[in-house]
Amino acid sequence: MQDFIYCAPTRVIFGKDTELQVGKILKEAGATRVLLQYGGGSIKKSGLYDRVVQAVREAGIELYEIGGVQPNPHLSLVREAIALAREKKVDYLLAVGGGSAIDSTKATAVGVPYEGDVWDFYCGKATPKTALPLGVILTIPAAGSEGSNSSVITNEDGWIKRGLGCDLTRAAFAIYNPELTYTLPAYQTAAGASDIMAHIMERYFTNEPDVDMTDRLCESVLKTILKQAPVCVQDPTNYAARAEMMWASTVAHNDFLTCFRVGDWASHQLAHELSGLYDSTHGAALAVVFPAWMTYVYKHDVQRFCRFAVEVMGVEMDFFHPEETALKGIAALRSFFRSIGMPTTLKELGVPENELDLLASKVKRGPDGTTGKFVPLTEADCRAIYELMK
Amino acid sequence: MQDFIYCAPTRVIFGKDTELQVGKILKEAGATRVLLQYGGGSIKKSGLYDRVVQAVREAGIELYEIGGVQPNPHLSLVREAIALAREKKVDYLLAVGGGSAIDSTKATAVGVPYEGDVWDFYCGKATPKTALPLGVILTIPAAGSEGSNSSVITNEDGWIKRGLGCDLTRAAFAIYNPELTYTLPAYQTAAGASDIMAHIMERYFTNEPDVDMTDRLCESVLKTILKQAPVCVQDPTNYAARAEMMWASTVAHNDFLTCFRVGDWASHQLAHELSGLYDSTHGAALAVVFPAWMTYVYKHDVQRFCRFAVEVMGVEMDFFHPEETALKGIAALRSFFRSIGMPTTLKELGVPENELDLLASKVKRGPDGTTGKFVPLTEADCRAIYELMK
Repeated sequence: MQDFIYCAPTRVIFGKDTELQVGKILKEAGATRVLLQYGGGSIKKSGLYDRVVQAVREAGIELYEIGGVQPNPHLSLVREAIALAREKKVDYLLAVGGGSAIDSTKATAVGVPYEGDVWDFYCGKATPKTALPLGVILTIPAAGSEGSNSSVITNEDGWIKRGLGCDLTRAAFAIYNPELTYTLPAYQTAAGASDIMAHIMERYFTNEPDVDMTDRLCESVLKTILKQAPVCVQDPTNYAARAEMMWASTVAHNDFLTCFRVGDWASHQLAHELSGLYDSTHGAALAVVFPAWMTYVYKHDVQRFCRFAVEVMGVEMDFFHPEETALKGIAALRSFFRSIGMPTTLKELGVPENELDLLASKVKRGPDGTTGKFVPLTEADCRAIYELMK
Repeated sequence: MQDFIYCAPTRVIFGKDTELQVGKILKEAGATRVLLQYGGGSIKKSGLYDRVVQAVREAGIELYEIGGVQPNPHLSLVREAIALAREKKVDYLLAVGGGSAIDSTKATAVGVPYEGDVWDFYCGKATPKTALPLGVILTIPAAGSEGSNSSVITNEDGWIKRGLGCDLTRAAFAIYNPELTYTLPAYQTAAGASDIMAHIMERYFTNEPDVDMTDRLCESVLKTILKQAPVCVQDPTNYAARAEMMWASTVAHNDFLTCFRVGDWASHQLAHELSGLYDSTHGAALAVVFPAWMTYVYKHDVQRFCRFAVEVMGVEMDFFHPEETALKGIAALRSFFRSIGMPTTLKELGVPENELDLLASKVKRGPDGTTGKFVPLTEADCRAIYELMK
């Protein structure tokens, strides 16, 4: 059982039409000049862009914007946003979208008041001392960036993807209208579900003893996804299912489920390489990686994998054969991913079978040559896990 | 499924010896003149008082204090604290203790900058516009005030107990060292457990449909108490059990479990009268009230009570006789309270049997003459529920 510090101060405004409150909320927060960041054209097509712009302008706030934030948001666009924010003397940032728009906005928040280059924060050369405040209108439940302190930016100079964990980048407010997610395609919905589950499972598989309370809380949110993701895929305008997916996205990654625990996070490293080399959707890559990782490591703590099988996946405990119970849980997870349209093999992700050595060599490992806290993995371990994804 | 606004910004510092950080934390927050409030002598006997005073003074902070905060904290002491805070130009408040010390501090926080009398906020005559910042060192897991926006103050002029819900009174930080609770007597430990469970059950019994995610989260925390309260009672220096009780206290009442839901809260009104007239410990009164309330209302939603029986109390579902399953769940809860040393009858609380009419007449009800949202209770209903506590 670990000591911890926990602070998730984001003000959550959740419900129908809540995006219309954004002008009032920004004004109450003292914003006068706001920079909006968003991704592709979907928020324009849906009319969300117009509603947001109108709400902000009606509150008497100057609005500037940077559109076209890419998945795996790019450093060059962040630098552009920082320059624009400085030029226009922006005092508040607003992200409309999912993890990419939010992460780009977080990087902008720490970059604007910093004299050096914002990449310093992501390559570990400097630590942010201050940041512009930021708010979020969430449209994609997946990354959990709306509630987390983390952001990931890709430097196109070498295509280096780096993360920053910094409480100054927690959103001051986050607006959730489940109806905004009705138009998410099934694949993106399922990839989001996989991403949310992965955030929880990274925390769930821990060597910490006596973490029963957060075990149960993790299981609660995992079971919510098992129940609601298929509903969202099959019935995209189901309000309750979309709502629980949105809230689960935040709870999974705002550190509430980290209390008392040490997470693993090797699967994220294994998945990052798939996204980096083959442009796999993050959630889809995680759906391929996680069951393979589990199969490779379950013997490290069979009882924990039995708990996962029984409490999350609904497998009946076989007290004569705990290992079989553990394996059934992993098989059930793989089946679940398949049932919502996620890939579960490298082939489905389009990864050539002869590049596993390359992949394994690229996985980011610590100074001791390993990655992951639950079971520290060497390069050979990573290679073997990729092999299990064939 | 309800829309909601949720913001629980308190910074949680959790672990062994964390109280020693209080000076540093206050200093970083800009505090220069701090008013400390605490209850009886227990924090002096344990040495906690000395450690806190030393830590604050070593940080170069002026410290003033008001001791002797009573359970059901009194308005007169709050007024005294406000006067002292103004006189000494205090800029930060610190509570060391449980719900009473924290609630007294919350009232002081809104009272100091207010020109009128602080009771205005509690009798509904005014709404706080600003407040002094406050921090907490928690020593009693029960009321959840360390994470909540609520406080309850008793006006000795008429012995009127009134609550205030106000986000300005959320603690800026809360420090938890489970070892500080090792010396809590078994009865107080059990009453705290009952209070925590009651906060969750008030939220759990709702008429809102489609609240599966927060149902599960409620069940997780309830099961934590079922597991850890008996451990704390029998093995008072069990760190993990004390730690989970502390964290459960906060999670139960900081509104995280309110998301999407409408709570009931009739049982709290029924218990308030027992505390008011017979000075019953709040948690003990709730242990008497809740099973009686459940027995009276379970037919309103047998399936919800079956869920409680199965998912929380571990009763096997009898699909032929759901009502029996529901009743077995209630019986199991009553047995649990008894097993940790809580009373489950009015007689054990020392309430005279011939005063039930008086009790029922005093229960606070709304303009429509009822109390409670799950099942609105009339005075006659309240009388009947008290009858079930005999």
